[in-house]
Amino acid sequence: MEKIKPRTLSGFMELLPAPQMQMERIMEILRRTYALYGFTPLDTPAIESAEVLLAKGGGETEKQIYRFQKGDNDLALRFDLTVPLAKYVAIHSGELCFPFRRYQIGKVYRGERAQRGRFREFYQADIDIIGDGKLSIINEAEIPSIIYRTFRALGLTRFQIRVNNRKILNGFYELLGLSDRAGDIMRTVDKLDKIGPENVRLVLCEDDGISEEKADEILKFISIGGSNAQVLEALEAYRGRSERFDEGLGELSTVVGYLGAFGVPEENFAVDLTIARGLDYYTGTVYETTMLDHPEIGSVCSGGRYDNLAAYYTDRQLPGVGISIGLTRLFYVLGEQGMLNPDLPTAPADVLVLPMGDEALSSAIALSTALRGADIRVQLYTESRKFKAKMQYADRLAIPYVIFLGEDEIAEGRCSVKELATGQQQKLSPDEAIELIRAGLAERSRGSVIRETI
Amino acid sequence: MEKIKPRTLSGFMELLPAPQMQMERIMEILRRTYALYGFTPLDTPAIESAEVLLAKGGGETEKQIYRFQKGDNDLALRFDLTVPLAKYVAIHSGELCFPFRRYQIGKVYRGERAQRGRFREFYQADIDIIGDGKLSIINEAEIPSIIYRTFRALGLTRFQIRVNNRKILNGFYELLGLSDRAGDIMRTVDKLDKIGPENVRLVLCEDDGISEEKADEILKFISIGGSNAQVLEALEAYRGRSERFDEGLGELSTVVGYLGAFGVPEENFAVDLTIARGLDYYTGTVYETTMLDHPEIGSVCSGGRYDNLAAYYTDRQLPGVGISIGLTRLFYVLGEQGMLNPDLPTAPADVLVLPMGDEALSSAIALSTALRGADIRVQLYTESRKFKAKMQYADRLAIPYVIFLGEDEIAEGRCSVKELATGQQQKLSPDEAIELIRAGLAERSRGSVIRETI
Repeated sequence: MEKIKPRTLSGFMELLPAPQMQMERIMEILRRTYALYGFTPLDTPAIESAEVLLAKGGGETEKQIYRFQKGDNDLALRFDLTVPLAKYVAIHSGELCFPFRRYQIGKVYRGERAQRGRFREFYQADIDIIGDGKLSIINEAEIPSIIYRTFRALGLTRFQIRVNNRKILNGFYELLGLSDRAGDIMRTVDKLDKIGPENVRLVLCEDDGISEEKADEILKFISIGGSNAQVLEALEAYRGRSERFDEGLGELSTVVGYLGAFGVPEENFAVDLTIARGLDYYTGTVYETTMLDHPEIGSVCSGGRYDNLAAYYTDRQLPGVGISIGLTRLFYVLGEQGMLNPDLPTAPADVLVLPMGDEALSSAIALSTALRGADIRVQLYTESRKFKAKMQYADRLAIPYVIFLGEDEIAEGRCSVKELATGQQQKLSPDEAIELIRAGLAERSRGSVIRETI
Repeated sequence: MEKIKPRTLSGFMELLPAPQMQMERIMEILRRTYALYGFTPLDTPAIESAEVLLAKGGGETEKQIYRFQKGDNDLALRFDLTVPLAKYVAIHSGELCFPFRRYQIGKVYRGERAQRGRFREFYQADIDIIGDGKLSIINEAEIPSIIYRTFRALGLTRFQIRVNNRKILNGFYELLGLSDRAGDIMRTVDKLDKIGPENVRLVLCEDDGISEEKADEILKFISIGGSNAQVLEALEAYRGRSERFDEGLGELSTVVGYLGAFGVPEENFAVDLTIARGLDYYTGTVYETTMLDHPEIGSVCSGGRYDNLAAYYTDRQLPGVGISIGLTRLFYVLGEQGMLNPDLPTAPADVLVLPMGDEALSSAIALSTALRGADIRVQLYTESRKFKAKMQYADRLAIPYVIFLGEDEIAEGRCSVKELATGQQQKLSPDEAIELIRAGLAERSRGSVIRETI
């Protein structure tokens, strides 16, 4: 028969079993952490009507969309989880309770030019809190604590949650009389890390047509630094000149003020006046999260406050705040950096049970059943291979324990348990075996999924 | 602004938060149970190259496929999880250890005509064991124990795993000299439940052109019933006339013989000579699982043994055995039948924390943080609404506990915990509150996700 060459499309992540196990572990931590903050899981279709999905229209994204006909239907694959959320809330607003808190971990699709570390199918892990008409600022203060707990649960300590407030930025440009050019200016300022302050000034003056004096004001503003208290103090100097600015400063002070109660240490949080997160969507607090030892990765968890989730679908005012983790890219980067903890178990089973001869089979099956009843993951190996091949199988898969069951063991009502890492072998009763294996597994699963030092 | 009417495509399941929570619970049980048998989780792309996905070709399915161009690429959405598994194993065979055991719970796509209970996007939950060249029959014996443990974990007892062996069927038609018509005959026999034995005989004789004598032989054969031991005994009468039949009978006897050791009770298992599961793919043991009180649903977990997983991609012989649960349809049917246990918590949080006034906010935040540290899911409610509206919020979401924190409580270092179901309210220290809530939650999550009697 002529063969088709099997292949996976480029830009699509497909993991081998061991890294997949790490990915599952990360997803489980995200689900658990998000649930602790009262977010409910949602699952929406990957395919939507193109009309609904593209209600907002939108240049760059639209080109990347997977769009196709099926019968008479004009369909498209979702390119983020926000538009489907907007649709969901607009449809079901009568059945939901507000503030509505949902998390969703799901695949989204963007037909970008494939390149290393860029994916066309990737997981986003999103949380959003949607209010009905209004939404308390405390929700914006809670978001950094969620990011903090999530990243700590993954094993990270060397990260910083950077926060700004769009009202402060817009208010500042307002008080400079530059409201109409705020978009261009923010785009230029966003390049600060890449091109440095001198070049930012140059671009501001030459390309954006800002006067030198105002460019200096802008550079002075975005260079405000120090502790959070120092930044807030410096911002106080601008108070009283723009209502919007004052409102933003009030919000930022509130967000910063409750951080301690929310359990976020000062060193994992910074007010950063340079971040803006896009141009029109966000209206209040904005967030970015960077890894201190890997600034080159950029933000691994971003989001912010918006005033109107579903304006394209409904007149109902639905303000919200949300963040998103680009999980597939984060996982890829962690792998590249060698930051996935290889000491955590990735084996498909905790125990390989080897019956020694056909007469031992029934006993081996019964023992496997008993171990599974005690929540131990068991593979029963019954292929006719040489003993050495069976041990190699356990070894290659990094299955930590092998249990031998032969005539002698069965007669004694015991089994031989070998720990592969130490080579130690003991004859134990099934209960003793369960106890030994459980203790060993608890020891093995102690570490975190991400490790910062190698 | 002109609005686009938000809608979800027909044939696509999109659940409200409470049923979604039940769905998540079912998925978690499947993941945990599959893991107990040493299956490793896999995740493959939803989009594949159309050439790879349709390597096998195939009439009915091909029409239903979502296929589209993106740039120069001819793409398609996966319509099952078996073809992607075949591709995966063919690509990675050098890096995998055999037998390779994987589970995958993922969405698949079929553009069927939409009708009630039919979905175009639906979850399949698959397990497969793939051998390299050969695969021990014990794997086929293990499968019913996996189905049994899975369904029991979901809360079902009234189900039956039906098993047959394709070699017995093919061998039987061989010894009747009807091998070349086995396909037609099996298709007719498959209608037994629907049209009854008399009509099966009629169709066999008139449409399939089988002699009356042979039709009687067939009807006699498929009416073999009784206990598993009785069925196996009746089948012994045919032994010695077809090598294939004898082989199949040996396999079936082996599968049945080890069931006890695998912990499957006799009442949840039956040899059923009428099931065949399609025509060319399966080659040995085949499985169906029916719900005894709802035979109209048909099989909710099916599969079987096949000789060659990836013949379209590789010369390597990869025999396997697998089963699949059509999860979306199963969930839909359970909902329709009122079988999803409404007593299990579906609230997004275990506790709603209500600060009584702005002065209580810091303390409420700190208490929420402490509760989350004790693995209790907390929503902190900070919207400015009337007290009654806040209580209604907790009530509508079925959040079991509300904690009030006011001046008095803060002064005493305590909090007021109200259990909504009983209306009972107590002032407790945070540690006491944690203890009370944990005990209550343990009580509440005791039941199973599916309940058989209403």
